[in-house]
Amino acid sequence: MFIVQLWDVYTMRERTLIKDLNKHIDQYVLVAGWMHRLRILGKLGFLLLRDSTGFVQCVLNAQQIDSIKHLQVESVLSIRGYVIKKPDKEGLEVHVSEIEVISPVLDQVPVEINKDSLDAHLDTIIDHRPVTLRHEKQKAIFKVQAGILTAFRNAMIEEGFIEFRSPVLMGAPSESGASVFEVKYYDHKAYLAQSPQVYKQIMVGVFERVFTITPVFRAEKHNTTRHLMEITQMDGEVGFIEDYDECLEIIERVVRKIFNHLDNNYSKELQLWNTTLPQLPASRFPKVKVKEALQIIEKKAGKSAQRPELDLDPQDERLIAEWALEEYGSDFLWILNFKKDKNFYTRNNPEDPDESLSFDLVCRGLEWLSGTHRIHDYNKLVENMKNQGLTLEYYEHYLEAFKYGIPYEAGFSFGLERMTQQIFRLKNIREAVLFPSDLDRIAGQRISKHKTV
Amino acid sequence: MFIVQLWDVYTMRERTLIKDLNKHIDQYVLVAGWMHRLRILGKLGFLLLRDSTGFVQCVLNAQQIDSIKHLQVESVLSIRGYVIKKPDKEGLEVHVSEIEVISPVLDQVPVEINKDSLDAHLDTIIDHRPVTLRHEKQKAIFKVQAGILTAFRNAMIEEGFIEFRSPVLMGAPSESGASVFEVKYYDHKAYLAQSPQVYKQIMVGVFERVFTITPVFRAEKHNTTRHLMEITQMDGEVGFIEDYDECLEIIERVVRKIFNHLDNNYSKELQLWNTTLPQLPASRFPKVKVKEALQIIEKKAGKSAQRPELDLDPQDERLIAEWALEEYGSDFLWILNFKKDKNFYTRNNPEDPDESLSFDLVCRGLEWLSGTHRIHDYNKLVENMKNQGLTLEYYEHYLEAFKYGIPYEAGFSFGLERMTQQIFRLKNIREAVLFPSDLDRIAGQRISKHKTV
Repeated sequence: MFIVQLWDVYTMRERTLIKDLNKHIDQYVLVAGWMHRLRILGKLGFLLLRDSTGFVQCVLNAQQIDSIKHLQVESVLSIRGYVIKKPDKEGLEVHVSEIEVISPVLDQVPVEINKDSLDAHLDTIIDHRPVTLRHEKQKAIFKVQAGILTAFRNAMIEEGFIEFRSPVLMGAPSESGASVFEVKYYDHKAYLAQSPQVYKQIMVGVFERVFTITPVFRAEKHNTTRHLMEITQMDGEVGFIEDYDECLEIIERVVRKIFNHLDNNYSKELQLWNTTLPQLPASRFPKVKVKEALQIIEKKAGKSAQRPELDLDPQDERLIAEWALEEYGSDFLWILNFKKDKNFYTRNNPEDPDESLSFDLVCRGLEWLSGTHRIHDYNKLVENMKNQGLTLEYYEHYLEAFKYGIPYEAGFSFGLERMTQQIFRLKNIREAVLFPSDLDRIAGQRISKHKTV
Repeated sequence: MFIVQLWDVYTMRERTLIKDLNKHIDQYVLVAGWMHRLRILGKLGFLLLRDSTGFVQCVLNAQQIDSIKHLQVESVLSIRGYVIKKPDKEGLEVHVSEIEVISPVLDQVPVEINKDSLDAHLDTIIDHRPVTLRHEKQKAIFKVQAGILTAFRNAMIEEGFIEFRSPVLMGAPSESGASVFEVKYYDHKAYLAQSPQVYKQIMVGVFERVFTITPVFRAEKHNTTRHLMEITQMDGEVGFIEDYDECLEIIERVVRKIFNHLDNNYSKELQLWNTTLPQLPASRFPKVKVKEALQIIEKKAGKSAQRPELDLDPQDERLIAEWALEEYGSDFLWILNFKKDKNFYTRNNPEDPDESLSFDLVCRGLEWLSGTHRIHDYNKLVENMKNQGLTLEYYEHYLEAFKYGIPYEAGFSFGLERMTQQIFRLKNIREAVLFPSDLDRIAGQRISKHKTV
């Protein structure tokens, strides 16, 4: 009987995930993962093994210690052993029969990743992303980010939106004004999409309600904690919207569904950061026009309501966020009707010539989403584009959609990194992207290392 | 009573979708959509209204006909009227009380899109994408494409994969050999990702199982029915894979789940094209090594098994696909162990020095997916990269991941457009992408219109 068991151990090939070990108490198993920590106490070794589902302590004898004590943490191991319930304690242990080294690590890991917190400068964290991402708190950020993507898509599909793939390569800049990256496209120039704006509006003519999750690119000249050159936008566009409040209602339902999903699936990840999800109001999110917001701020903080344009500065945004939390118990707030937009596709408010029909969803003072009510009239679009000196030929497809019938519509755009940043209260947007591009880096690696290739 | 009803009609604002009209028989409704067709028979007009959910016939009187007869099809209308069940017929009609023109179309639509089939050259179809996409058969293609995306993601999540966002901007080409697009990145050069390869392998060290849906770019010099410069890849990467057959098993389950989803949700769309989903075998998909495939082809078609390299030409692929259908009742077939790969990350077969540990999933003779078993040994990777003359500094992050422990692993990549193309048996890959980029076009628009900007 015992011989059969040993034979089983050495031929056993099926791996047990650490989270499933409790189904194998008093049995032999094969576990595999990374050596997270190794403590040696006399003739006993305690190896903390990590896989994608958790941690387990593996107990080694003197001979086994000798076979792996030259290895550094993060070595990848496959371990056969016997699962026991720890006496007088919660949790399980694996008493090791055999260790196979899958990938030995011989140099010391550049950043200590087996402590509760990563004690390193952000630059160091990004320089060593492939290793620092393995820290539990770093993993938590990107697990939740994956959860946001899933929940957004499911919510949009439930609201009747159809997903489409928006092109990255464009023949002309998608937004006037904003800086754009140029691509050498054979003998021509192409541009990296600054937004899926043009395409999502075209697609309203096809499916009425569309969404896309897509990378967008801005050739920013700034190196701040807020700027990235490549981000992920989660965009929606809705046809047959007469009053943009109908669009706000949809967005509120989507935000609630995202939060439900995170609440149900990622409480452990949020706890690691001692954070809770932003507070949602009981019913509709509070709404305030920029004009009204400035009045409230004047009353509240004694700051003058006079601004050169209908816009809020960062201090205003914080003040009005405080107001929404006090008055409505909500971390979220709609700020409506900013100054007339510079883009060609936003409707102005027919009742107030200063205002555009625009909306930002602000959470704890940070913009999560922005959107506008669109112009659907072909002639008005042509007029606006001409006034901006745009070459109409480059927008042939866009204009064709409107020439042949687009309903009144509205659209919006979530910033994935900003949502992630704020849920975890991260100081720098770079913490919320796996491989950030900025003035110093491309996809996480320092540009200086690339020079001109 | 009747007066109250009329008042209701004119103040009614809530739109009823055409698919829901059967819940409103003998009631007033507001419907909105596109004028798909207008027939005038004496004093009666029959307007076929289309929204995203279906079609309904609206019956107009002489005065109403006068108010819209100057409009072309695709005009966007909002119609108030009374729903009745057609006498002696299936289906419903709306007897119109009031018509509001949301967007008038005054020029004739460039391609007839209200016939059963789009009778136009592919170039014309793409030139007029914003309009031609509204044809029911075109819509079907992209609805199913959205369904593939949803089903792929759900299946991957069920298999324990975590989604991540792979960067598009890279500091160095992601694949040696293949042509790459250059981006002017301030004073430097960046490159558009040719694949998420580097990043998905790094992420195996973090989450073990990862997937991403991402645009990839190839600066192809060819203008064929098979080449596009921007496509969507659906990629997966799996850690702790000792025998790549474990990876094939996962992929087979994912394909089955995608097909289940399409079968349950898109039968109407497939019927429009008179197509059925490719045939799946009862159990595992048939597998054949390239070497064996060449022997089978020799026997079957008398074509010599001698090739300069271990590879199949398009005729071979068709022949071996026929064989799989005859022998296994399967439109799918694994072709295994191609010639040693030129890339630096694929394992060779330790038992046969000619072969790499690689796999293609072929459906009806077209490659849907390719993948390989990866090298996880840091020193071997460094050696391969040096042999290829790659600058190791550009792959700093990639190499760091392996230096600090990556398990044996395998990965794969589905081509979204190819899957879509073959499900609908489309002749040209361009039919399976909304806004194709090729030698003549960027995002669907002709390059000649852009010249040098």
